[in-house]
Amino acid sequence: MKGFKFAGISAGIKKNGKKDLGLIWCDTPAVAAALFTRNKVVAAPVILGREKIKKGLCQAILVNSGNANCYTGDQGIEDAVFCSQLTADSLGISRDLVLVSSTGVIGAPLPVEKFSASMPELKNQLDSSHFTDFADAILTTDTCRKIVEKTGTINGKQFTVTGVAKGSGMIRPDMATLLAFILTDADIDAAGLKTHLLAANKKSFSRISVDGDTSTNDSLFILANGTSNVLIEDDASNAVFAQILDQVCVELAKRVVKDGEGATKLIQIQVKGATTPEDAFKVCETIAHSNLVKTAIYGEDPNWGRIMAAAGRSGADVITEKMDLYFDDQALVLNGRWLGYDIEKNVAQIMKNNEIFITLNLNLGQASDFFWFCDFSENYVKINADYRS
Amino acid sequence: MKGFKFAGISAGIKKNGKKDLGLIWCDTPAVAAALFTRNKVVAAPVILGREKIKKGLCQAILVNSGNANCYTGDQGIEDAVFCSQLTADSLGISRDLVLVSSTGVIGAPLPVEKFSASMPELKNQLDSSHFTDFADAILTTDTCRKIVEKTGTINGKQFTVTGVAKGSGMIRPDMATLLAFILTDADIDAAGLKTHLLAANKKSFSRISVDGDTSTNDSLFILANGTSNVLIEDDASNAVFAQILDQVCVELAKRVVKDGEGATKLIQIQVKGATTPEDAFKVCETIAHSNLVKTAIYGEDPNWGRIMAAAGRSGADVITEKMDLYFDDQALVLNGRWLGYDIEKNVAQIMKNNEIFITLNLNLGQASDFFWFCDFSENYVKINADYRS
Repeated sequence: MKGFKFAGISAGIKKNGKKDLGLIWCDTPAVAAALFTRNKVVAAPVILGREKIKKGLCQAILVNSGNANCYTGDQGIEDAVFCSQLTADSLGISRDLVLVSSTGVIGAPLPVEKFSASMPELKNQLDSSHFTDFADAILTTDTCRKIVEKTGTINGKQFTVTGVAKGSGMIRPDMATLLAFILTDADIDAAGLKTHLLAANKKSFSRISVDGDTSTNDSLFILANGTSNVLIEDDASNAVFAQILDQVCVELAKRVVKDGEGATKLIQIQVKGATTPEDAFKVCETIAHSNLVKTAIYGEDPNWGRIMAAAGRSGADVITEKMDLYFDDQALVLNGRWLGYDIEKNVAQIMKNNEIFITLNLNLGQASDFFWFCDFSENYVKINADYRS
Repeated sequence: MKGFKFAGISAGIKKNGKKDLGLIWCDTPAVAAALFTRNKVVAAPVILGREKIKKGLCQAILVNSGNANCYTGDQGIEDAVFCSQLTADSLGISRDLVLVSSTGVIGAPLPVEKFSASMPELKNQLDSSHFTDFADAILTTDTCRKIVEKTGTINGKQFTVTGVAKGSGMIRPDMATLLAFILTDADIDAAGLKTHLLAANKKSFSRISVDGDTSTNDSLFILANGTSNVLIEDDASNAVFAQILDQVCVELAKRVVKDGEGATKLIQIQVKGATTPEDAFKVCETIAHSNLVKTAIYGEDPNWGRIMAAAGRSGADVITEKMDLYFDDQALVLNGRWLGYDIEKNVAQIMKNNEIFITLNLNLGQASDFFWFCDFSENYVKINADYRS
């Protein structure tokens, strides 16, 4: 895409020497929107970002991994402001056009001297071809970078939406989850961009979980610089833009779950036939967060009773005798009746797959919802028992 | 205690040949009360038990492990009725005086033929000295039996309260959790017994969690046979009885958490200074169920940011700048300020203990609450990835 440049370097914030400082630059100020965590304990960059994004304009985003700059008090706010100013001065723009974002350990002071020392190199590295360097610099316990790019066509002209995200623990949807940056060359106003971002988020980042812990730093940004000259204004162009943005967000969200800490499988739970949309969501969410369901899936054991027990404790209306349960297209329970060991053997086979689709029909009403989650392995425990060491 | 007899044998319900069938017998019908799971998917014995307990009388409880008789449809109900009748016939009493209780795998048919074949031996084993056999027969993934006995004195006469419980996964409080049987020789009416049980449960079994999954079979029973001739009727005797019952329930509940699947540490989180009791409970519960908090404690890492992040996402009112956090008596955060690495080293030392007391003061109001939970190790995953194999 024209008009965007990127950099990603090692500034020594992470102990392991991996890339930990990234920069997105727009040749001209881009239209911007963002969603932030609803956790009441929030990081300094989120406090700043909520204010700055109100203008709907952004020209640079500085992102570090290895330190969340959260629960760092007034000093944390000062440090975030310092990093914004540092970036603005280096790039010769107003501080109002710089957003900052952090991810990593909560509670440790931000090592601002490393930001100062690294800013010249970071600026030097800015190049339209350095997107993967940026994608690497924002990772924490992720095992791979996460980039998704899709193109759409409106009135014969092409536009692009590119997204990049990081996971992969403290992941549970609440408004926005994790750090994700979406860039597009479409030409759209700030209000429209925000509306599209909210809608796409609802189907993607708000429907995933790795471990049920909502982060203090969750932020989802989108920048639109208009360089494709594709104007998003009427119903038709909005529909196409929404579709492409949805695809990028859904695919990014799935990649975050797939690379969840210790994860070996990606699972979609779909709940149908709920009395209300709230009930459908509750059942999805409870199943997706059940450690017993997640460990059974890791063990490739069709221990379906745990799914039913999770539905039963979700708070939603459920009636044992009405529930149908499917793994992919294979029914295992119909009208509350288990179909027996032979059928369960087929399900055990399905559970060896890396992607598993579970459908629970409550057969009580018309509401449905879905959720992506991952299994739960010993590696999740290992990763998180010594995350800071 | 006079008037109670017990048995526990292996009936072949468990694959590993361990004891799996237990019986409690009262020489005369005892006053009885019980609390059951609020999960909407419930086991057949719970459906039967809810009806039977209304009479407030019970003379025998048959308990099996290795099979939950849950999600087993009409057949499951018939099987539970069959087991009640079998017990009643064997003991020569009315079926109305027999309660049944099951724990184990959900969804597998109850092997009633094993109950029939074993009933003569079970009856033969009945003896006042066989309480530990009963305690062993109700265990599933528990690594040890859980028995607590306390005595109280009213007007110079002694009475006893003895409790036995099983854990140790699918443990999350909601009314009653897990299987627990409390016996007393105090003389008390059914309404009084139920009131005391509700109160004791609120401070014990409703304040613990191993993994956040509420079981389909949770049941808490109490039987009072009056053989001590200690009458519980006035304020003073009710106060003494409540105190002793509380002690038994709290100690049993703690033992369940301590023996939680894969657990290595027992933790009490106490939340003070909340705006409302609901908020205090929400913060306790969210911290106690955070996999990130639980894995950090397993790793003996004072990663306190995860505790604050969990409080922040709990839905309760919290203000970052007001929170104080203590490990045992050691403050680590005061007025939202982290006290630094030296203090954190002291906390790291405290985290090597097997029992850890965490106190979070929100400093917003007067409400407080507490919760017992365990840490989260690789062994939880191992146990639950192949529970049925």
